[in-house]
Amino acid sequence: MKRTSAALVPPISLDRRGTCPIYRQLYDWFRSAITEGRMRPGQRVPSTRSMAAELQISRISVFNAYEQLHSEGYLETFAGSGTSVARTIPDDALGFLPTHKRKGLQGAIAKPGRRKVSARASILLKLPSEPWLRNLGPFRVSLPALDQFPVEIWSKLVVRHSRKLSRASMAYGDVMGYLPFREAVAEYLSTFRGVRCDASQILITTGSQQALQISAQVLLDPKDQVVMEEPGYPGARVAFTAAGAELIPVPADSEGIVVPEINRRGRHARVAYVTPSHQYPLGMTMSAARRMSLLQWAAHSDAWIIEDDYDSEYRFASRPIASLQGLDVHGRVIYVGTFSKVLFPALRLGYMVVPKDLLPAFSAARDAADIFSSTLFQAALTDFIADGHFARHIRRMRMLYMDRREALVCAIQSQMGRNLEVIGDEAGMHLVALLPPGMSDVSVSKHAAQNGISAMPLSSCYLKAPKRGGLILGYGGVDPRQIQDGIRKLKISVHRHAVV
Amino acid sequence: MKRTSAALVPPISLDRRGTCPIYRQLYDWFRSAITEGRMRPGQRVPSTRSMAAELQISRISVFNAYEQLHSEGYLETFAGSGTSVARTIPDDALGFLPTHKRKGLQGAIAKPGRRKVSARASILLKLPSEPWLRNLGPFRVSLPALDQFPVEIWSKLVVRHSRKLSRASMAYGDVMGYLPFREAVAEYLSTFRGVRCDASQILITTGSQQALQISAQVLLDPKDQVVMEEPGYPGARVAFTAAGAELIPVPADSEGIVVPEINRRGRHARVAYVTPSHQYPLGMTMSAARRMSLLQWAAHSDAWIIEDDYDSEYRFASRPIASLQGLDVHGRVIYVGTFSKVLFPALRLGYMVVPKDLLPAFSAARDAADIFSSTLFQAALTDFIADGHFARHIRRMRMLYMDRREALVCAIQSQMGRNLEVIGDEAGMHLVALLPPGMSDVSVSKHAAQNGISAMPLSSCYLKAPKRGGLILGYGGVDPRQIQDGIRKLKISVHRHAVV
Repeated sequence: MKRTSAALVPPISLDRRGTCPIYRQLYDWFRSAITEGRMRPGQRVPSTRSMAAELQISRISVFNAYEQLHSEGYLETFAGSGTSVARTIPDDALGFLPTHKRKGLQGAIAKPGRRKVSARASILLKLPSEPWLRNLGPFRVSLPALDQFPVEIWSKLVVRHSRKLSRASMAYGDVMGYLPFREAVAEYLSTFRGVRCDASQILITTGSQQALQISAQVLLDPKDQVVMEEPGYPGARVAFTAAGAELIPVPADSEGIVVPEINRRGRHARVAYVTPSHQYPLGMTMSAARRMSLLQWAAHSDAWIIEDDYDSEYRFASRPIASLQGLDVHGRVIYVGTFSKVLFPALRLGYMVVPKDLLPAFSAARDAADIFSSTLFQAALTDFIADGHFARHIRRMRMLYMDRREALVCAIQSQMGRNLEVIGDEAGMHLVALLPPGMSDVSVSKHAAQNGISAMPLSSCYLKAPKRGGLILGYGGVDPRQIQDGIRKLKISVHRHAVV
Repeated sequence: MKRTSAALVPPISLDRRGTCPIYRQLYDWFRSAITEGRMRPGQRVPSTRSMAAELQISRISVFNAYEQLHSEGYLETFAGSGTSVARTIPDDALGFLPTHKRKGLQGAIAKPGRRKVSARASILLKLPSEPWLRNLGPFRVSLPALDQFPVEIWSKLVVRHSRKLSRASMAYGDVMGYLPFREAVAEYLSTFRGVRCDASQILITTGSQQALQISAQVLLDPKDQVVMEEPGYPGARVAFTAAGAELIPVPADSEGIVVPEINRRGRHARVAYVTPSHQYPLGMTMSAARRMSLLQWAAHSDAWIIEDDYDSEYRFASRPIASLQGLDVHGRVIYVGTFSKVLFPALRLGYMVVPKDLLPAFSAARDAADIFSSTLFQAALTDFIADGHFARHIRRMRMLYMDRREALVCAIQSQMGRNLEVIGDEAGMHLVALLPPGMSDVSVSKHAAQNGISAMPLSSCYLKAPKRGGLILGYGGVDPRQIQDGIRKLKISVHRHAVV
């Protein structure tokens, strides 16, 4: 009798018709009451019998709720003294006191809204972002012709591998990637890109961004210098910034990055990031002389070259340019490629070719980052390559993109020849159209986005202020009709910003 | 005539029967000759006519080869003086000189084999790794019952989404994840894990490892301190080490991490990494009192808690323990979970719940790391959850793992009760069996691996030397027969190491 009176049954309202079981509602009520300070450490709780009677519920429900509260340490039982709120619950647990008791202590708690994150995260947050470009409208950069992808063939392969999911293909896979896939990639790169490698050097990634992130992780310590082409690829800038590196812009001219400038501005750089086959974004090819000087610089400076060969499959006026990596006899080049542009981005498959002595470090960094890439798509893509679909798709897309580029250049010249100047080689999936001097490419880009156009401002590729603005126009994912229509819309935005 | 004599046709051997086109062989020969210094800058090349005549090949082939060499900058043509090796090729290009000329310069080039990588990569390479555990044999930790996964149902969903690949599902997806999937995850976590969140706070990752890597990136600068449970999860250690953080081991007892020790050893720590539902690897549950003290510590110290809820779905003796995150009123907890253990690892899908004010930083870090997760599996899993297969599978696995745990405990007790002491709650997919004092768990583990057993040494979870060795035995992926057989094999390894 005494026990029951010592622990009056609290006013618990139960929802008897809801989907939440009674014992759970009881558990929840006690947990909140304890953590919010409505029940104090040491305070008695009613017996299961009295609780059940008072609340008109089954004693089993009460028992189950108490059991759970016990096992989580909210309640404790001492022989002879019944069950009470655990005394180990800290009495002054901040945030668990009733609000009126917390007041005086609030000052000690850091204010939300301006809480400290890491220095590198703070810098990342300050990088320019173009949220208005997130639409999939005309001229979206890096978007291939998704409607031309052989979805039927691909899905057949996915289905085939999905139905016979083996233990090995469901479990943890190889950090470096699925071996047959790495062999296929090595063969492709040796034959078509002039890369010197074997399958042991291939590290499969979830795309080129991860390849850059891992490279930054392995090659760079915070404050280390990285040479970037100016203008250059914003994704690389993000990856190196995230690693805490210092970026050194070195101009790129018609022959690619100006190597003598590296010696002047970035003498102590640990890494140079370049796009020799098709400079991003301007579109020229790095000359043989520059390639050799760059390799020489790296060998002399104990530095590394990251070669990003993001869309080299597509050259229209000449044959594909062989990779810089293939010229390197000192193992100074980390070669990076992706299937996002030749197939589709949501595949999340890319690759890198790593100098052999660096393989343990790259493998460890991939393991630390996210362990391995999904096996299913690697297996399906191995078949896709082996069956010849890959080569066939590239050939078809090369013709298609050549036509689309021509259509875009024509549309620009006929509709806005006075205002846009096209630059870059006949290659890839995008071109750069320079705006008249003095016109803000960010303003034009923002305005165009209101009409559903995704035209990336050239200035977002510069670390320093550019001399002249421009628009990076992707033509991979737009058909001729969309090109005509898109340029008409773009014209409105450019004219609006024209100096009167 | 003079031109032809000035440029003798070099001794080029062509493979006329091979698959490589003639022009390509010619191009390759010239490129090698130039880059290896056999042809010097300014040196004349034969005319297309004389080359074709001499080599008995078509003039078109020669023309195509020259065209390509031109476009890549290896050759140049001046009106009136014919074609020659480009003078811009640096004469002293190191590595491009014939070997005998290079000798004196070799010293200037860093020796391969001990080339410098970043400090954090060097530390990563020094972490203990257990290459002998890479087999999928009995007791492999973290491996679910793959043969029990409803492959038919799953592959039907994959097929459904694979066949109707939309433009949106092939293009770049949302950095935070596929929205319907995030909504499903938020609902699951709120209902079943007591997590306070909405879909906007869910960040889909490629698994819990990536969640840890991104958290480290956002919350930690190099040299920042992280509190780790001792013993603790090696994957977390790798992620924080890769970020350059300093790890502070704080002992875990039967109630979980000893919070007063945090104040003593890790007062300035920025982050505490904990596994409250089921301590990894020892298997106990963090008590309510410790939970509140830990939250209090974080709020007072302006620090963060990373709650890794890796296998909380599986509790056998009591109901699942609600998350620590749900108790936190200060937004100090980053909650991490994964589908690798409830479904299968090669899915590469995990998630984190991020305090709202940190969302921009976490989103930026994910973007920098690898942009987004493959859409197809997110869409298929959304259906898998909505159709009730997910809850059904968890329920089935809970029963299965409970039986398997019991079978394992029985087998240990009956076969090696004197040598192995089982610890930990009745939960999860693994248990820890302590070895007799003085026995090296690494030696036992290595020996057992020779018999196809994957028994992880407990010592690999310690930052400091452990008092007593043990084996972490996963029972998720082994049936009762394999358990019996595995323990028999393990017995041999343990007996071999027994102190005589």
